[in-house]
Amino acid sequence: MRLTFNEIKAEIKRVLIKAGMSEEKADICARVHTESTYDGIYSHGTNRVARFVEYIQKGWVDIHAEPTLEKEFGAIQVYNGNMGPGILNALYATDAAIALAKEYGIGMVGLKNTTHWMRGGTYGLHAAKKGYIAMMWTNTESCMPPWGGKDCKLGNNPFIMALPNQNSHLDIQLDMAISQYSYGKLQVTRLAGEKLPFPGGFDENGKITDNPGAIEESRRIMPIGFWKGSSFSFMLDILGSVLTDGIGAADLDQKGMGSCGGASQVMIVIDPKRTTSKEGMSEMIDKAITHLKSSAPAENANGILTPGEDYGRFRKEHDEQGIFVEDSVWEEILSL
Amino acid sequence: MRLTFNEIKAEIKRVLIKAGMSEEKADICARVHTESTYDGIYSHGTNRVARFVEYIQKGWVDIHAEPTLEKEFGAIQVYNGNMGPGILNALYATDAAIALAKEYGIGMVGLKNTTHWMRGGTYGLHAAKKGYIAMMWTNTESCMPPWGGKDCKLGNNPFIMALPNQNSHLDIQLDMAISQYSYGKLQVTRLAGEKLPFPGGFDENGKITDNPGAIEESRRIMPIGFWKGSSFSFMLDILGSVLTDGIGAADLDQKGMGSCGGASQVMIVIDPKRTTSKEGMSEMIDKAITHLKSSAPAENANGILTPGEDYGRFRKEHDEQGIFVEDSVWEEILSL
Repeated sequence: MRLTFNEIKAEIKRVLIKAGMSEEKADICARVHTESTYDGIYSHGTNRVARFVEYIQKGWVDIHAEPTLEKEFGAIQVYNGNMGPGILNALYATDAAIALAKEYGIGMVGLKNTTHWMRGGTYGLHAAKKGYIAMMWTNTESCMPPWGGKDCKLGNNPFIMALPNQNSHLDIQLDMAISQYSYGKLQVTRLAGEKLPFPGGFDENGKITDNPGAIEESRRIMPIGFWKGSSFSFMLDILGSVLTDGIGAADLDQKGMGSCGGASQVMIVIDPKRTTSKEGMSEMIDKAITHLKSSAPAENANGILTPGEDYGRFRKEHDEQGIFVEDSVWEEILSL
Repeated sequence: MRLTFNEIKAEIKRVLIKAGMSEEKADICARVHTESTYDGIYSHGTNRVARFVEYIQKGWVDIHAEPTLEKEFGAIQVYNGNMGPGILNALYATDAAIALAKEYGIGMVGLKNTTHWMRGGTYGLHAAKKGYIAMMWTNTESCMPPWGGKDCKLGNNPFIMALPNQNSHLDIQLDMAISQYSYGKLQVTRLAGEKLPFPGGFDENGKITDNPGAIEESRRIMPIGFWKGSSFSFMLDILGSVLTDGIGAADLDQKGMGSCGGASQVMIVIDPKRTTSKEGMSEMIDKAITHLKSSAPAENANGILTPGEDYGRFRKEHDEQGIFVEDSVWEEILSL
């Protein structure tokens, strides 16, 4: 099914107001879900609306809560998200970090006790569009075994780095979970009767496999870079707790308030005007992209992409043909 | 060969003084090379001394240069490393970032025009031992193809995250290059007649392989997480340039002053006392480690390690048996 941006946003907004949100808050959340869909991140856009409503109904998200300042020192602030909507809390924290970066060149906001922020890249792009560099991450409940173990004891802890590119429509952003594949990707690949492009985990006997169904059964997805991603994910978890006075995977598992219910998020924002001239930065970006793309293509490759370049491809397709929404997903939203 | 810390340090110091360094600077560099060796990072400790001397002799490292402040705003400082010794520049920049974090809670130092910092983890541990959290990286010359390409256009851009753990001897630090394996690891594995534990790159025909020699020939090492590491590495490169007003892989390749000659480094340091109590932090660390290690072991695994835990294993072995140095490496140092 293909729909316009406004059709999707209006329908999500209706659903969120019906779930009890104020008109103003529903408008922002609906916009963010629609923007993620427009950028091709369906999994955290339209496809996540029903689950968000379910979390509200279960009392796992408090739609009336607002973030409250708990600590403040120089270029650092720590907020309690009070289990409010993850999108609103994360936008608030990002804006607070931007304000600190404006004043001090760099700023960090720790946000504890928040809920699922949906697409992490939302907040990186939010800062980048305003001219700021962002480094952000969230911790999550355990969904991945550590290297050398077979039980899920690590989150996939999405990590974001964004760079403003104000002379171009090309967004430059890394938005990566630390698992090689998401469970969503495993499911889609299994349903299509395909194998993963590269081994993505272990089967129940501990054999490395590219069979998505075998990994779904074992729950043994693999971190990027094997032992390296395992350590990276651990650092994001513990630094998430320490920098927010919040909790990590161990306590999130106990809390049992849905995916990322009570998570800790870190927003570091930097003002590049304090390190480089605007012209200098444009030149650096152009040079780095030209260098990257000057490589001869690999055999059977689909081209060399800069981080975030795929958003533009989805936007173009969605502008030309309308924004794609799976029929069943749209029917579910209409029914809410 | 097994030697004491002081034997190794004294000999490296002698070599560096002979190469023209002041007694004070030689002492610091010799200590850092020896500490890396003590922690088991032989590749960037004793094994790198001869190459450092070669760089001095070629004029690629200016042993008399000192970092100079170029920009300053709030919690940000940017220094020109003036092609001075990478270890001294990076320690200077780390101390400057610590001073900013003390004043503002968080601080960032950009260091451009510097030279190889040897072991990146040196600076993370330096901050952590003083009670600070560190996030740091360096960009490097191109040594890895981007995803979808076959020519080396990306650096392996080591990325460090360190956390103070003052109640314990256990260092908690991630110190990872973005390539799955280093060329050093490929060489060692090939010389041992072994295969890599996991595929580490592509052969000359673009076939993914665990044969180290085939990857050494093609120069097509692989980023961690395939496309994910490729994007991560690109971000570290361009953010390295922008946050230091310095250069990235494209220009480093042109400069031709050895590995990392002219590189850009970013040191972000945070004071965790501003976000969490000391007791709270200890509790969080204990809980996260207990959680990680509560996983059942995987088949044929050697245990579940926290990031940096292996340093302790090397230190124990080195305390008991003396510090390991390869005979040929020691002979080379003696001959310098």
